[in-house]
Amino acid sequence: MSVEGNNERIILLTNDDGYYSTGFEALINIARGFGRVIAVAPETGNSGMSHAITIKVPLRIRKLEEREGITIYACNGTPADCIKIAMNQILDRKPDLVLSGVNHGSNSSISLMYSGTMAGAIEGCLNGCPSVGVSLLDYSRNADFSASVEYGKTVVKHVVDKGLPLGTCLNVNIPIGKIEEIKGIKVCRQTKGRWVEEFDKRTDPRGSDYYWLTGYYVNDEPTSEDTDEWALNNGYVSVVPITIDLTNYQLIDSLASDLE
Amino acid sequence: MSVEGNNERIILLTNDDGYYSTGFEALINIARGFGRVIAVAPETGNSGMSHAITIKVPLRIRKLEEREGITIYACNGTPADCIKIAMNQILDRKPDLVLSGVNHGSNSSISLMYSGTMAGAIEGCLNGCPSVGVSLLDYSRNADFSASVEYGKTVVKHVVDKGLPLGTCLNVNIPIGKIEEIKGIKVCRQTKGRWVEEFDKRTDPRGSDYYWLTGYYVNDEPTSEDTDEWALNNGYVSVVPITIDLTNYQLIDSLASDLE
Repeated sequence: MSVEGNNERIILLTNDDGYYSTGFEALINIARGFGRVIAVAPETGNSGMSHAITIKVPLRIRKLEEREGITIYACNGTPADCIKIAMNQILDRKPDLVLSGVNHGSNSSISLMYSGTMAGAIEGCLNGCPSVGVSLLDYSRNADFSASVEYGKTVVKHVVDKGLPLGTCLNVNIPIGKIEEIKGIKVCRQTKGRWVEEFDKRTDPRGSDYYWLTGYYVNDEPTSEDTDEWALNNGYVSVVPITIDLTNYQLIDSLASDLE
Repeated sequence: MSVEGNNERIILLTNDDGYYSTGFEALINIARGFGRVIAVAPETGNSGMSHAITIKVPLRIRKLEEREGITIYACNGTPADCIKIAMNQILDRKPDLVLSGVNHGSNSSISLMYSGTMAGAIEGCLNGCPSVGVSLLDYSRNADFSASVEYGKTVVKHVVDKGLPLGTCLNVNIPIGKIEEIKGIKVCRQTKGRWVEEFDKRTDPRGSDYYWLTGYYVNDEPTSEDTDEWALNNGYVSVVPITIDLTNYQLIDSLASDLE
């Protein structure tokens, strides 16, 4: 199960849609050419799993495929679990790069908070690896990932060449459309927005109520041109640098003077 | 299932250990006295579920108990689900305050990222409600929550009186010990640290390997006195203001000049 340590770059991949998703093959296409690829993806879809980790059942890993420079495993855990178990049980040394995606669906704005894809990247970042999550704004199984692959490569090349500060990873979202329709990359901030929850309430054959989570996204600042939602709605690839330090530093002094 | 709108303050509660946990009763004791309490807690333990939401199975809610000023429901979802379904299906109006906890175990430093308790508070914050998560550094079922209740009330009173900026909630952690041993409150930043993963590898009766997630916490800045870990290790209650905007603003300009 171990990868021989050598001078080659090691790139660890995961996603949240499962190892069989077309977006995961797109991520492999982004990564290959930058080094040796070790991919550990969930057995089943983990959309909406955020940064959940598995503690009640044990994890299992199985090797699915080995091709030139690429080894693919499936794991019964979440994206965060996949990164953890890869680092601890599969790889001999810390990877040079962690990539997650390509997600089928947006992870811009507040969707970042619920995203299993971005949790995979954030878990890499927590472990001190330069990490990038990539998502395409198209849920369909037959989505066209060619722009995702091209722009993914551009961002990964930048990260490989320049690195990222410790504690920061990148959230990359790709608009739907052909590659020639995309206007380029915008580096943005996370849009202030929220999901307005609407539950679809139904009654089961025994007369008990149950609820399906649905809902729609509301952008609280639709005209702000420095946000990821604006970029995506205007034909740009959005790149948001994401920190794992969630402290609101601006509030510390006033809170301290009231509470200490 | 609906709560009549009136002028009374409405306080929405959740946790991640399940409705039957002693920490949840402690949270009810913090909240009562500040207004009408509506508590919606998971049916089972949701530790480590982070901000996961339930999309593959429908949610169900059942009323457990109604006492004076307190109504308690159980839900088969995560803490984030509990807050969502309470806001959409149980409450007639947005609550004035969202509280989550009291968690059995620490949610300081990077544990915040995996925490179902803090996800409950963050979900309240996403919905524009002043929100606080409270955790006690004691995993035992018979933990002494008296300091948690006292300091929880102090922090909640502050939030009720002064409010919180939109997009910011509070992560409160309480050290183990008797209330008279606690030195007071420290408002802190999130400690830089990580979980060093160690998986306990075993072999099942059929000869297949499986792995239990274990691991221990490493503090990367143990002497920094402005961090939550330092506060907790030195007998203080830690209060960290947490933002839901994860953008690393410092990196935007340099990334933009390279990538745009």
